Amino acid sequence: MNYFSLSAAQQIILQSTARLGMETIPLARSLNRVLAKDILSNRDHPPYAVSAMDGYAVRVNNLSTLPAILTVIEDIKAGTLPIKAVLDGQCARIMTGAAIPQGADTVIRVEDTETILSDAVQINTGAALGTNIRRQGENLRTGATVLKAGTMITPGVLGILAMVKCAQVPVYQQPRVAILSTGDELEGLDDPFDSNKIPDANSHTLFAQVLALGITPTLLGITQDDPLELAQAIRRGLDYDVLLISGGTSVGVHDYVRPTLAELNVHMHFWRVAIRPGHPFAFGTTAKNQVFCLPGNPVSSMVCFEQFVAPALRQATGHHRLYRRTLTARLSHTLAHRHQNMEFVRVRLAQDQQGYVATATDSQSSGVLLSMAHADGLLIVPADSNGLVAGEAVTVQCLDGMCYQNTPFGAPV
Amino acid sequence: MNYFSLSAAQQIILQSTARLGMETIPLARSLNRVLAKDILSNRDHPPYAVSAMDGYAVRVNNLSTLPAILTVIEDIKAGTLPIKAVLDGQCARIMTGAAIPQGADTVIRVEDTETILSDAVQINTGAALGTNIRRQGENLRTGATVLKAGTMITPGVLGILAMVKCAQVPVYQQPRVAILSTGDELEGLDDPFDSNKIPDANSHTLFAQVLALGITPTLLGITQDDPLELAQAIRRGLDYDVLLISGGTSVGVHDYVRPTLAELNVHMHFWRVAIRPGHPFAFGTTAKNQVFCLPGNPVSSMVCFEQFVAPALRQATGHHRLYRRTLTARLSHTLAHRHQNMEFVRVRLAQDQQGYVATATDSQSSGVLLSMAHADGLLIVPADSNGLVAGEAVTVQCLDGMCYQNTPFGAPV
Repeated sequence: MNYFSLSAAQQIILQSTARLGMETIPLARSLNRVLAKDILSNRDHPPYAVSAMDGYAVRVNNLSTLPAILTVIEDIKAGTLPIKAVLDGQCARIMTGAAIPQGADTVIRVEDTETILSDAVQINTGAALGTNIRRQGENLRTGATVLKAGTMITPGVLGILAMVKCAQVPVYQQPRVAILSTGDELEGLDDPFDSNKIPDANSHTLFAQVLALGITPTLLGITQDDPLELAQAIRRGLDYDVLLISGGTSVGVHDYVRPTLAELNVHMHFWRVAIRPGHPFAFGTTAKNQVFCLPGNPVSSMVCFEQFVAPALRQATGHHRLYRRTLTARLSHTLAHRHQNMEFVRVRLAQDQQGYVATATDSQSSGVLLSMAHADGLLIVPADSNGLVAGEAVTVQCLDGMCYQNTPFGAPV
Repeated sequence: MNYFSLSAAQQIILQSTARLGMETIPLARSLNRVLAKDILSNRDHPPYAVSAMDGYAVRVNNLSTLPAILTVIEDIKAGTLPIKAVLDGQCARIMTGAAIPQGADTVIRVEDTETILSDAVQINTGAALGTNIRRQGENLRTGATVLKAGTMITPGVLGILAMVKCAQVPVYQQPRVAILSTGDELEGLDDPFDSNKIPDANSHTLFAQVLALGITPTLLGITQDDPLELAQAIRRGLDYDVLLISGGTSVGVHDYVRPTLAELNVHMHFWRVAIRPGHPFAFGTTAKNQVFCLPGNPVSSMVCFEQFVAPALRQATGHHRLYRRTLTARLSHTLAHRHQNMEFVRVRLAQDQQGYVATATDSQSSGVLLSMAHADGLLIVPADSNGLVAGEAVTVQCLDGMCYQNTPFGAPV
C-alpha cells in the first residue's frame, strides 16, 4: 500500500479544496471569519484635522520666543466644531479628538503650558509645525479600499468594519461538517455504562477541533461494523460538505468502509500517510464532498485532524494561514527516532532566558489521550532523523490555542 | 498624577479579581472553559489488555526460532471478546483495539507475518515480551483523578471528559461584561451617517476582544458627555460584574466620569499607567464590580484590554495562563524609543531560517486602527530602552490568535 508523505497528502487535499461562496452576516457574528469582498471607506477618518492631545491649538510661528503668552479664545471639546479662527497671539484650548480651529497649525500639550489668567496661557515648550495634529483622512479616506478580501476578521479588523459602518459583513461561507464514529466496541456518551466497551472519545475531540475553527459540526453518532448500517450512515454523511469518519483502523472495518465508499462513488486519493502517529489516514472526494477517514486511535485522530483536516477547512473558509504556528525550542532530553516516518511528539513548552524549552509528555503511546491533553505542542521529528539530542533546536507546532501561519514548518524549506 | 507601571497595575487588578463560582454545562459547550472540580475516571481504559496493531496475538516463547509457524485458532475483532485461550504453537488473528486472548503475551504486526494456510501463519520477525499490547487501565484507572480542577478544556481534554462519560461538566462561571462608549462626537453603528462625527469603533473592538475570550458581552451603546445621562448609563453598567467604559480621554469628559464614579461608590485604584499607547487607563472596584476605563483611542484601548482586562477576565474564569504568549524575534530595522514609558509597537511577524523577524507596521500613530488590524503582535520596548537596532532580539506578544502563558514576558525576569 502506498504511503503518502505529509506534504504530498496535504497538497492533494488542498488541491481538492475549493474556497466557498459568499454570505452576509451581522458584524457581531463575524469574528474570525474571512472577508469575501474588498471593503471601501464610506468616510474620511478623522473627518477633519483633530488634536492628538489635550492642550492648546496654536500658530507655531507665535512660539519663536519662549515662554510665549497667548490669549485663549475658545474651548473646543470633541464632538463640537470650533466657531472662531485663531489669529496671531491667540490660541484655543482643545481636547483630544476635537477639531483643529482655522488658523491653528500645531497643538502644545497641556503639560508644557501654564494657565496665567482665565483667558491667557503661557506656552513653555515649542514644537515642530503640525505636532499633535491628526490630519483629515489620516486613518481612512473616502472610497479607498481599507480592507482586502481574504482578510481574517480579528478584533482590530472588526473595529475598522464598525468605523466604515459595515453592519452586514460579506464573508466566505463555512462548510457543513459531519462526524461519524464506527466500531462495535464503542459506547456513546449517552449510552449506558458497559465495562467491556470503549467510550467514544473521537467524535468529541473531532467535534471540539472543528468547533475551535469556528464551525459547528453535526455529530452523526456511532455506527456498528455492519455493511448496511455503515452504508446508510455514510450516505447520510454525504449530505454534508465534509464528512469525517472516525475509526476503520481494523481490517474488519476497512472491509466495510472501503467497498461502501466505492459503492457511493467516493474517489479515494490515498489510504495511508507516512506520519506517526497518524496511521491509518485516508482521503476521498465526490463532486461535492470531501471524506476524511481518521484513525480510531484518539491521539492519531487529533494529529491527523491538525495536519490535514484543519488546513482544508481553513482554506475552504478563505483563510490564507492554514497551518499551526511553529516556534523553535530547545529539546530538554534525548529523543530516539527509529521510524522512517515523520514523527509528531507531544511536548510541553516552558521558557527560560534563552527561549522555549520542549519536553516530551510522559507517555507517547498513541492510545494515551491524556498525553495530548497535557501537551502544548507537537515536536516535529523529520523522517530522516537518527534521533535528537538534548539542547538541539527543534520545531514545535503550537497546539495550545489558535495561531496559524502560511507554511507548515515556518520558513520555507 | 501617579503613573503606575504595567506590572504594578496588573498586580492591583489581579488582586481584586476573584475566581468565580462553579456551574455545570453540557460537554458540547465546554470548549475553552476551565474545570472547577477534579474529574475521576469511571472505568479502566482500556477495559482489558488490547492490541495496539493489526496482527497476531502469540506466546513470545514460541518465537525462539524464526520463522515460526503457528496455528490460528480465532479471529478477534475490536468490540467482541475472545472465546479461546492461546496455547503453545497457537496464535489468534487480532485487530487494533481488540482484547488480547488468555495465554497470549505479545502481538506481532501483520507486516511481519505471512499467511500459509487459512488456519496457519508464519511469523518472520520476533518481538520483546508485551510488544504491541496496551495494558488494562494504561490510559485511565477507575477512581483515579484524570483531570485536575483548573485544567482548560482543550479538544484533547474534552475527549477525556467524553471517555469518562462526563456529559455535564463542572466549570468556573463567566463574568457578565458590559461595554459603554462615551463621547458627544461618536456615531453608533446603526446611527445615520454624519460626516462630522467619529464612528464608534471601540465598542466593537472591545466586544470582539471579550468574545474572543469566550464571553459574550453586552453593548450598552453610546452615552453623551452629560452628567445625568452618564450617571444613568454607568449605573446600568454596574448591574454587570465587569464594566468597560470606553472614552473619557478628554478632560471635559473626565470631569463627568470621575465624579460620577465617585458618586456611585466606585473606588478608583489608579487613573494612569506608564505604557504607550495606553493613555489614559483607569481601574476601579466596588464590592461586586470591576470598572475599567479604557482610552477613547482605539489602538490604546485594544492594547490596554490585552494587558489589563484580558488577564482579569481569564483569572475570573479560572485560567492559569493569563498573558498573551510571547516569542523572541529579530528586529528588521532600527527603532527609536524616546519615552520613559514601556512601549508596545505593532509588528508583523515573518519567518526565515533563523526564526522570527519582526517589522513595525506602517503607522504607529495610536489613531490608526488599521495598523492594529495589520499587526501579528506587539513588540515590547522596555521603559529604560535607548532604542533598538536592526538584528536585535526582541520580545513580541502574539496577537494573531489565542495563545496564553503564565508570565507577561516569557521567562521570569
